[in-house]
Amino acid sequence: MMAVTLLWRSLVTSRLCGYIILTKRLYSSTAKRIRVRDALNSLETGSIIKVQGWVRSVRSQKHNIFLHVSDGSSLQPLQVVASSDLNTRDLTFGCAVDVTGRLEKSPSKKQSMELQANRIDVVGECNPVDFPFKIKGHHSLEYIRQFPHLRCRTNAFSSLLRIRSQATAAIHAYFRDNNYVQIHTPVITSNDCEGAGELFQVEPAGNEWNLDKENHHFFSVPAYLTVSGQLHLEVMAGAFPAVYTFGPTFRAENSQTRRHLAEFYMVEAELAFTESLKDLMKVMEGLFKTTTENLLSHCAEDVELFHKYISPGNMEQVDLMMKRNFNVISYTEAIDILNRSSEQFTFKPEWGCDLQTEHEKYIVQHCGNVPVFVTDYPYELKPFYARDNQDQPQHTAAAVDLLVPGVGELCGGSLREERLELLRTRLEKAGLNDTYAWYLQLREFGSVPHGGFGMGFERYLQCVLGIDNIKDTIPFARFSHSCVL
Amino acid sequence: MMAVTLLWRSLVTSRLCGYIILTKRLYSSTAKRIRVRDALNSLETGSIIKVQGWVRSVRSQKHNIFLHVSDGSSLQPLQVVASSDLNTRDLTFGCAVDVTGRLEKSPSKKQSMELQANRIDVVGECNPVDFPFKIKGHHSLEYIRQFPHLRCRTNAFSSLLRIRSQATAAIHAYFRDNNYVQIHTPVITSNDCEGAGELFQVEPAGNEWNLDKENHHFFSVPAYLTVSGQLHLEVMAGAFPAVYTFGPTFRAENSQTRRHLAEFYMVEAELAFTESLKDLMKVMEGLFKTTTENLLSHCAEDVELFHKYISPGNMEQVDLMMKRNFNVISYTEAIDILNRSSEQFTFKPEWGCDLQTEHEKYIVQHCGNVPVFVTDYPYELKPFYARDNQDQPQHTAAAVDLLVPGVGELCGGSLREERLELLRTRLEKAGLNDTYAWYLQLREFGSVPHGGFGMGFERYLQCVLGIDNIKDTIPFARFSHSCVL
Repeated sequence: MMAVTLLWRSLVTSRLCGYIILTKRLYSSTAKRIRVRDALNSLETGSIIKVQGWVRSVRSQKHNIFLHVSDGSSLQPLQVVASSDLNTRDLTFGCAVDVTGRLEKSPSKKQSMELQANRIDVVGECNPVDFPFKIKGHHSLEYIRQFPHLRCRTNAFSSLLRIRSQATAAIHAYFRDNNYVQIHTPVITSNDCEGAGELFQVEPAGNEWNLDKENHHFFSVPAYLTVSGQLHLEVMAGAFPAVYTFGPTFRAENSQTRRHLAEFYMVEAELAFTESLKDLMKVMEGLFKTTTENLLSHCAEDVELFHKYISPGNMEQVDLMMKRNFNVISYTEAIDILNRSSEQFTFKPEWGCDLQTEHEKYIVQHCGNVPVFVTDYPYELKPFYARDNQDQPQHTAAAVDLLVPGVGELCGGSLREERLELLRTRLEKAGLNDTYAWYLQLREFGSVPHGGFGMGFERYLQCVLGIDNIKDTIPFARFSHSCVL
Repeated sequence: MMAVTLLWRSLVTSRLCGYIILTKRLYSSTAKRIRVRDALNSLETGSIIKVQGWVRSVRSQKHNIFLHVSDGSSLQPLQVVASSDLNTRDLTFGCAVDVTGRLEKSPSKKQSMELQANRIDVVGECNPVDFPFKIKGHHSLEYIRQFPHLRCRTNAFSSLLRIRSQATAAIHAYFRDNNYVQIHTPVITSNDCEGAGELFQVEPAGNEWNLDKENHHFFSVPAYLTVSGQLHLEVMAGAFPAVYTFGPTFRAENSQTRRHLAEFYMVEAELAFTESLKDLMKVMEGLFKTTTENLLSHCAEDVELFHKYISPGNMEQVDLMMKRNFNVISYTEAIDILNRSSEQFTFKPEWGCDLQTEHEKYIVQHCGNVPVFVTDYPYELKPFYARDNQDQPQHTAAAVDLLVPGVGELCGGSLREERLELLRTRLEKAGLNDTYAWYLQLREFGSVPHGGFGMGFERYLQCVLGIDNIKDTIPFARFSHSCVL
């Protein structure tokens, strides 16, 4: 530890040497270690405290130095005022310090409290030439993304991480308050869930990979990284009224877009004894609004940083989403809206085809930039588990997507086919009867009407914070050709 | 839906047909849907409610039938009393039902409330011949493990899942209450962290695996499933006072024991500005005790099921752990204790060698079956990141393990080497300087003394509930040769 201890002169009125030494001893033994956030909110002026953190700015005047010290507990740093005697060469932007002194009301309007220091120890130096962030630099999210091991030391990304942590807690709180049981659905699975091709496969490193010979697999069968915990939650919806999972999911998508990651977080919920999409939509809207409300009240300062410097105008967008009821239209109505519009789409909207991103964006705009639920998609577009509406001539399934401004699809859900015979017939047609024998058994023994949905957590953060690139919403981004650290 | 609606006779005093029909209509429109737990705790006798769940027992008498209906909201089912007229062939053990009726005080001492039903709908049948669980069967954990898609429908496993969910919430609450920031550390990583060989590797399914050619990797580099989030948390300990992660971790261990899974959950915490193992031990003991206290108060009934039927005597063990301060001994003292004992060990205890499970068990017993922290392990036994104590002649590192009754090692942690030169030298010796260039940079820019630990979540559950086999603590167990569902 590089201890730099100097006497405190200009801030102590008494110049008696003995008094100063006494004060110093007293300080060392009585200083209470507190966090920057608590120091800023403290009402105890005059108390002797110790703050530990990283220097965000250094300003020297003739007699005094002014530091901003941040410890990650809040966006706002603590201003430290000290005699110039305490200044040293290694007291630079980015270095780590222990600061002891007296907490006082700040004469400046910029902060309520400041720390009048009598001791500053540099515990970890930081060479300002080599450090990729500069004291006066305004670094873009794109620039700091190059330094995944250091970007948490910037204001923007430390705010993001506090928001992400709080949003995670808020989501858990929403489900707990509504008596859901949390289930840790597995990451490694032998299902390829939706029959999609974009799966990661798993084997021990150094194994001789021999995908033809079954007995060479570690798990005896091919094993993949999960793309959804839905089927595992459906197991649990056979014993609990409501369950959820919140964890990592994976897509081996070989593309680099602002909207996709190879590893991302999904919130998924499943409700037993649910017979209507309305029940699901109520939960989705409740989850979105409760979580956002929680964020706005617990992370106001951090959210403001994004709305002020990164996505101006997004606060009004968030206000609007919070105030208004989400819209509900059917897929068939959505196609009608698109066909009646004068917009030139790259893909012609047509009943029976998936909505493209351009279509989703138009529909959200058409609905006044308030989120829209689109319900009852063509039966043939939806996976085997979606509940057959048994309607005609336009045959639909009881599925619902939630489209939001800026992002497009945020949530997707459906009622699940709980009727054994209908499910069996559909799986037979797809040649999946054996693979999903266990899934059929769920319908054989005490089957109940049920349904659920998934919400992309990073897309949620993009939507609320107005973050353009999904890579800036996650601590360590994984995408094709990139797995740093 | 198989609706079975019959009139309610023996429980309704009035025999006027008109009154009964009126009552029925009234019931259908006014019945409030509530959960079994809320029904059991309700004080509103006489209210008309609807309960939805699964039948756990059926008992017929001459005039009445008695059902136990469970919906997963509590271990205790709700007793339903109805006229025999409401009995039907498909009202069997395991079937799903909607029950409407009047909530009344139960004349029996076994439950406080019962539901006097006037309508029972079987919504999902359950063929009792094919259903693997039987109405009077006492199925062992080992037996039900064969049915991973159905075992949540047994009392024991639904209790386990409620406890697991509550323990998860309690762990999050502990860290939130202590102002930790939660970090989602990545599952896919290019680190092989501890240089261990037991890693899973990841590539897209159907990819031509060619481990020699770098350009064939999806991520451009070999990518693995994480064995620990520690190094990623250390990144964050350069910007936050305290961080934690709680998620899945992986070991490709080709063994089938009662103590190992290929996919399991770890709680990991990292504290900045931490200079003593005492700080870490305080957090570990606090986490263990606070979580356990929370479980005992919120899941009393579910925990009791385990302590009564599955691990008799474990409640006393838990009481003892909660009451007493955890012991602290050094590794060197532990070796002395082992060498002084009259026990015949398979492996001779020797300074410089790892403690074997038999040694760990002996030490816990020696300490009166109270958890023991063992500190300051031989330097050479610990990974590169453990902080050098710079002592002699017995050269140790500032590492600590927590040993607990029944399980052995529950937590492992250390102070981390924050001194750039010492770390660089050690990494150079191991030839890892290039691989961990980013990790060295953490020490170059504002390094702080820090430390952390990890706790195996399933082992925690094993310890508190007295569960012998780790496979019975996780919703879907993954181990060598087994990845069902």
